Amino acid sequence: MRLARLGDAGSEIPTVVVDGTHLDLRPLTQDLGPAFFAGGGLERVADAVAAGSLEPLDGAADLRVGPALARPGKIVCIGLNYRDHAAETNAEIPAEPVVFMKDPSTVVGPFDTVLVPRNSVKTDWEVELGVVIGTRARYLESPEQALDHVAGYVLSHDVSEREFQIERGGQWDKGKSCETFNPLGGELVTANEVPDPQDLRLELSVNGVQRQDGTTADMVFSVAHVVWYLSQFMVLEPGDLINTGTPAGVAMGQADKPYLRAGDVVELSITGLGSARQTFGQA
Amino acid sequence: MRLARLGDAGSEIPTVVVDGTHLDLRPLTQDLGPAFFAGGGLERVADAVAAGSLEPLDGAADLRVGPALARPGKIVCIGLNYRDHAAETNAEIPAEPVVFMKDPSTVVGPFDTVLVPRNSVKTDWEVELGVVIGTRARYLESPEQALDHVAGYVLSHDVSEREFQIERGGQWDKGKSCETFNPLGGELVTANEVPDPQDLRLELSVNGVQRQDGTTADMVFSVAHVVWYLSQFMVLEPGDLINTGTPAGVAMGQADKPYLRAGDVVELSITGLGSARQTFGQA
Repeated sequence: MRLARLGDAGSEIPTVVVDGTHLDLRPLTQDLGPAFFAGGGLERVADAVAAGSLEPLDGAADLRVGPALARPGKIVCIGLNYRDHAAETNAEIPAEPVVFMKDPSTVVGPFDTVLVPRNSVKTDWEVELGVVIGTRARYLESPEQALDHVAGYVLSHDVSEREFQIERGGQWDKGKSCETFNPLGGELVTANEVPDPQDLRLELSVNGVQRQDGTTADMVFSVAHVVWYLSQFMVLEPGDLINTGTPAGVAMGQADKPYLRAGDVVELSITGLGSARQTFGQA
Repeated sequence: MRLARLGDAGSEIPTVVVDGTHLDLRPLTQDLGPAFFAGGGLERVADAVAAGSLEPLDGAADLRVGPALARPGKIVCIGLNYRDHAAETNAEIPAEPVVFMKDPSTVVGPFDTVLVPRNSVKTDWEVELGVVIGTRARYLESPEQALDHVAGYVLSHDVSEREFQIERGGQWDKGKSCETFNPLGGELVTANEVPDPQDLRLELSVNGVQRQDGTTADMVFSVAHVVWYLSQFMVLEPGDLINTGTPAGVAMGQADKPYLRAGDVVELSITGLGSARQTFGQA
């Protein structure tokens, strides 16, 4: 299934997309957030789709596309999870996943304006496969169990400010949690429709120039490994979001350091998860 | 005012404590979380207290004491914010605040069991002044404005696993977000009742032996500075929690490294914010 949220920020209407038509999910749920996934929402939607009991949402085409996942309980990010990206940032391939967090209130829609922070000179892009947790994961015994806890996948943009992240005293979170820094794709695609999360192409361009073109096959740690690994250190809850790292091609890794400025347009996509386009503004 | 939440985990009843009596806040609010602070809840409670319109909560003394703040939107933590703690961990005094994050689902009550994570050998304690944001703080112009955005203060325990934090690949969050790792004090004391947040004594003992005895006067960066500073990098929202750092005396800083084990009892307190007592168990 492909889930979406349409409408103004803060009052999005949950939908499921069937044959290109947005069906209104309000008879089943108020929103697509942690409570929806924790309460068996996916099964209820599947049943309703099978029963043909949902109605099209009037005027869907005219509504803003919101983030497909309502405010996550937490956003956990994996750093340096593609060999080529680790190399371009002069970092070693990590021996185990590098974990950091992002403020959950940074989530915006896939076509919303993203703000370059005040005093920022190193705002950078990162296309990432976003993993949405469906059921509680705590001390999973092995990576083989991990994908059973994944509700689905979503196109995620882990916008990053490199000076704040690296040059301002120690921990990365400072450069990851700026306002609007996590655009989330228009559709949350359930796990059953993504046969192999390690075989997805990720692309990103800036002002029409392709900057990232990678594949999740090149992840250092697979989605299954990451979910299993994280469950040894924290409890993953339904509706949590994991950003699984970015391939090579970020501004920091390039000779001319083409960091983002107001007016720049970033377009990104992942196989099967749709595409997004963000114009940058100034905070 | 002194706000509290009493009852079983997940169904706590909000109260305000007046002359030692818990008055039931359910006529005014469902809970004491982000929506309460964002919606002018503090003013409604003050008005109701002044009007004498609230009823005592029956059987309050028999109820579990929950965390005084319902699930925060985010937990932002300041590292190495006391000179003596930086010294004991062989770290330099930071030039600007070190910022990291903690999973908001780690919050438990002040007398709840805290779990030593599986495979942990370095679980450590950290008594901290917790700051609860009352109104949105975004690019504040100066530290002088910052305290206007603080709803109140709460006794916070930033439980930390040092191996996970420091020896397992890069970023601290991994050792800060384990299940039950953020006990929060029984009472949230509104800012108007804390005349000087830089003049509070923090104490912590383990199995009856005093381990930490500090004062917020020794913070490297004051509460006002921290709130102002954070607002330059992220938007602070009502109901967010800031853990402002810990004074010297943690296990990591001592010659015999007396890390916590199941069965250990930690007691902590801050002037005017009450006390807490946690028995450690094994995850």
